[in-house]
Amino acid sequence: MEHIISVLVENKFGVLSRVANLFSGRGYNIESLSVAPTLDPSMSMMTIVTRGDDKIIEQIVKQLNKVIDVIKVVDLNETEFVERETALIKIHTRQEDRADSTPTTYTIEVTGDIRKVEACINLFQPLGIKELVRTGRVAIAREPVRQAAAQPRRVLKEEK
Amino acid sequence: MEHIISVLVENKFGVLSRVANLFSGRGYNIESLSVAPTLDPSMSMMTIVTRGDDKIIEQIVKQLNKVIDVIKVVDLNETEFVERETALIKIHTRQEDRADSTPTTYTIEVTGDIRKVEACINLFQPLGIKELVRTGRVAIAREPVRQAAAQPRRVLKEEK
Repeated sequence: MEHIISVLVENKFGVLSRVANLFSGRGYNIESLSVAPTLDPSMSMMTIVTRGDDKIIEQIVKQLNKVIDVIKVVDLNETEFVERETALIKIHTRQEDRADSTPTTYTIEVTGDIRKVEACINLFQPLGIKELVRTGRVAIAREPVRQAAAQPRRVLKEEK
Repeated sequence: MEHIISVLVENKFGVLSRVANLFSGRGYNIESLSVAPTLDPSMSMMTIVTRGDDKIIEQIVKQLNKVIDVIKVVDLNETEFVERETALIKIHTRQEDRADSTPTTYTIEVTGDIRKVEACINLFQPLGIKELVRTGRVAIAREPVRQAAAQPRRVLKEEK
């Protein structure tokens, strides 16, 4: 089963190597990985999409927590989450439909969950995809919906 | 100066480690990195945003080309390119504006170039960003605009 794991790390040399070495050394699969800045310039956030049964995912989380400069590891599959990915897709235009001085390709941006991105790639594939680049997925946990208690009404006017 | 480098790699264990080790071992900066599938399941595409003067970038490209399972390295700054990044931004809602049983946060998706993404993050920061996750940038080269030669007209009717 596929899991999305977010890993908050200190922005220090070698932390990406250590995480990558952990996966390659133990033969854990990486479907996609992205690492990018956070609001705090001393930290970066990694998002790793990996596959494995519960036991393997548990091991991955445990091992990641032991890596130097790893601050926090969250398996997003333990909760509901929103995921997004962006793909840039360069498509051949059909020359016969075009005037003679126009471009020969379109570049299309697609952002959505994995189903939407893969549906668009499948849609454009028969037209001839010249180049494709994907960001890999990022995800954020949904907040639990809290049913707040009814609030006491303010007494606007004292009643006798 | 910032450079976006795309690295096409064989989808084999250890290639991400080798690339990450190259950067950390030589002290090259990684601003963001993403690695994701391509149309060909035997290959992945990495996009690395790094900083350095021309000499350092030249070294990085040269070293990347020597890494086992690296197929192709392109410094996108050598041409014009389109870049995109996606950020998911979870923002606190202001409790005083809300009825009592509604959610306490919004999650916003932003896709655009680095300026747009960072402008949105700066815009939302005073409202209180609870969580932020970014994909890192991906980019695709613009096609050179070719001015095609005027095409010969078809002779519809022979004139005498």
